[in-house]
Amino acid sequence: MTERTNDLDGTVRELIDGKTKPLGALGQVESIALQLARATGKTAPRLESCELTIFAADHGIAGDGVSAYPPAVTRQMVLNFLHGGAAANVFAEAVGASVRVVDAGVAGDPIDHPDLLPRRIAAGTRNCRIEPAMTETQRDDAIRAGRDLTEDCPADVLCFGEMGIGNTSAASLVAHKVLGLPLVGLIGRGTGLDDAGLERKRAVLEQAAARTGPVLSPAAALAEYGGFEIAMMTGAMLGGERSDRPVLVDGFISTGAALLALGLEPAVERNLIFAHRSAEPGHSDMLDALNARPILDLGMRLGEGTGALLAWPVVRAASAMLTDMASFESAGVSGPA
Amino acid sequence: MTERTNDLDGTVRELIDGKTKPLGALGQVESIALQLARATGKTAPRLESCELTIFAADHGIAGDGVSAYPPAVTRQMVLNFLHGGAAANVFAEAVGASVRVVDAGVAGDPIDHPDLLPRRIAAGTRNCRIEPAMTETQRDDAIRAGRDLTEDCPADVLCFGEMGIGNTSAASLVAHKVLGLPLVGLIGRGTGLDDAGLERKRAVLEQAAARTGPVLSPAAALAEYGGFEIAMMTGAMLGGERSDRPVLVDGFISTGAALLALGLEPAVERNLIFAHRSAEPGHSDMLDALNARPILDLGMRLGEGTGALLAWPVVRAASAMLTDMASFESAGVSGPA
Repeated sequence: MTERTNDLDGTVRELIDGKTKPLGALGQVESIALQLARATGKTAPRLESCELTIFAADHGIAGDGVSAYPPAVTRQMVLNFLHGGAAANVFAEAVGASVRVVDAGVAGDPIDHPDLLPRRIAAGTRNCRIEPAMTETQRDDAIRAGRDLTEDCPADVLCFGEMGIGNTSAASLVAHKVLGLPLVGLIGRGTGLDDAGLERKRAVLEQAAARTGPVLSPAAALAEYGGFEIAMMTGAMLGGERSDRPVLVDGFISTGAALLALGLEPAVERNLIFAHRSAEPGHSDMLDALNARPILDLGMRLGEGTGALLAWPVVRAASAMLTDMASFESAGVSGPA
Repeated sequence: MTERTNDLDGTVRELIDGKTKPLGALGQVESIALQLARATGKTAPRLESCELTIFAADHGIAGDGVSAYPPAVTRQMVLNFLHGGAAANVFAEAVGASVRVVDAGVAGDPIDHPDLLPRRIAAGTRNCRIEPAMTETQRDDAIRAGRDLTEDCPADVLCFGEMGIGNTSAASLVAHKVLGLPLVGLIGRGTGLDDAGLERKRAVLEQAAARTGPVLSPAAALAEYGGFEIAMMTGAMLGGERSDRPVLVDGFISTGAALLALGLEPAVERNLIFAHRSAEPGHSDMLDALNARPILDLGMRLGEGTGALLAWPVVRAASAMLTDMASFESAGVSGPA
């Protein structure tokens, strides 16, 4: 932590402690407020707008039957997002956030829709059980596209979500290679595999993992095992750091992207706010490795940015505490007896 | 559970399972949606507005030094609410809820302010260490006033909050007498007592508890140990049941009111949604006794309705899932392979 951060922390702590409430009585909301100050570099940032960007892409490994759903669902869900019918859309409406949808690399022909942001790197990754999921050039292009998409976004707070059949497999492999955690604990049922499906997923992922050394750099892990939506989200998170904005990290796959962003640029730590603990069991391992305590624990395991969206009102309230709440002095309220 | 509730549950479960998401992937949001259906008696209730009513009152027992703050703070905080400067105000603004403030029995002269709802039963309760906090008539008047206030409220969802120096003591005693739980586990530091203060609070509350039999009926416990804000909130919760609306139960003191409401009218169970687990340690005992799992666990211990307010966007999202989210069929999305 830099001296500048320490100074800011002290000033913000003093501001919070002067508000009309017992010391510490807003619990985690106070910690979030502190992090909002760090993320923005401001004592009392006014954060009133939030945008969710959903990155969609397909995964070669999905052909190995690692998901309960067929790969065609990625494309179908992109259309569902564009028509406003997915959970992410209705949650965004409920919490007052806007939504952008990005084709980062959906299989098949490009989708033609006026509201879709076309940033496709390729029509899905290659099968990472057999070969690297993407080239280094594709990886770097995807990271750059994510950074640029964040620069184009005017919102005060950034939420990122994803859609990609097979992407819990990609996130498990990335986390395994970057953190060095046991692979088996990072593999879950994803969208709802039965016992036989889970066995199959484990066998496929073990084969994929055996293809490379036990620990990889974030950049190498991303090219070997990642997805275009994960790479683009990683870049978008880095864009959050560059533009001094808070980033709400959604669930299992988004935390995979956060791991990579932290590996590529440790300073992004000040921008990342973990939103929700996924029911996908490996997520807790990843959060523990990052020493992160998410805002919500609602047993969801959908992705799309749904967890990030539901945390946005809490973040907004933390910001409003800093900017709009009265102090004991301004309100003429007595302190402790 | 009635047959009607079982039928409704089945219909709503089917509706939720047809939405474009893996089965169960929205976790607790799905359980909340089910309860919204039960509370309203509708398969897909559209819930778009929320109002917080804050009940303020003083407590005779505060004169015994059971709080870290002087009793004058109740009145000062009422003015803070009316000027929009308290945590409840800024949280309400952040989540899109409106706020009403009710004088249920603040000590001193009546407060003259155009936005305050004057429903004062008396200028604070008597000291329940020595005598019953209120008469049966006062209790019944307060319950009725709370019911009427709910009838006057047009919002789809009801949040209730409270302010009253000394009211963690009242809530601890009420919970102790109604649930038969050990008193010591229900006594916490409230607004921030130091060790000596906590010792004093324990001694005062043990003396108060010894004044009556070990277990009391909800009505008796309310008159002996409650507060006017607690009684009025109890009535307001009962009004939620009568008008088929969901009620978001805030923290420690509000859960005390919920206990009383459940005791007086068990059917209110379908309306009560527990919003937040307070950092006041006895709250978990109360929640366990009610078999309740709150939506949020943010380590807050402020009351005022702050926990209920932060849960409102999650409730709104659960409602939007029921009303606005596409089905696999309507969106043309494939089911599991």
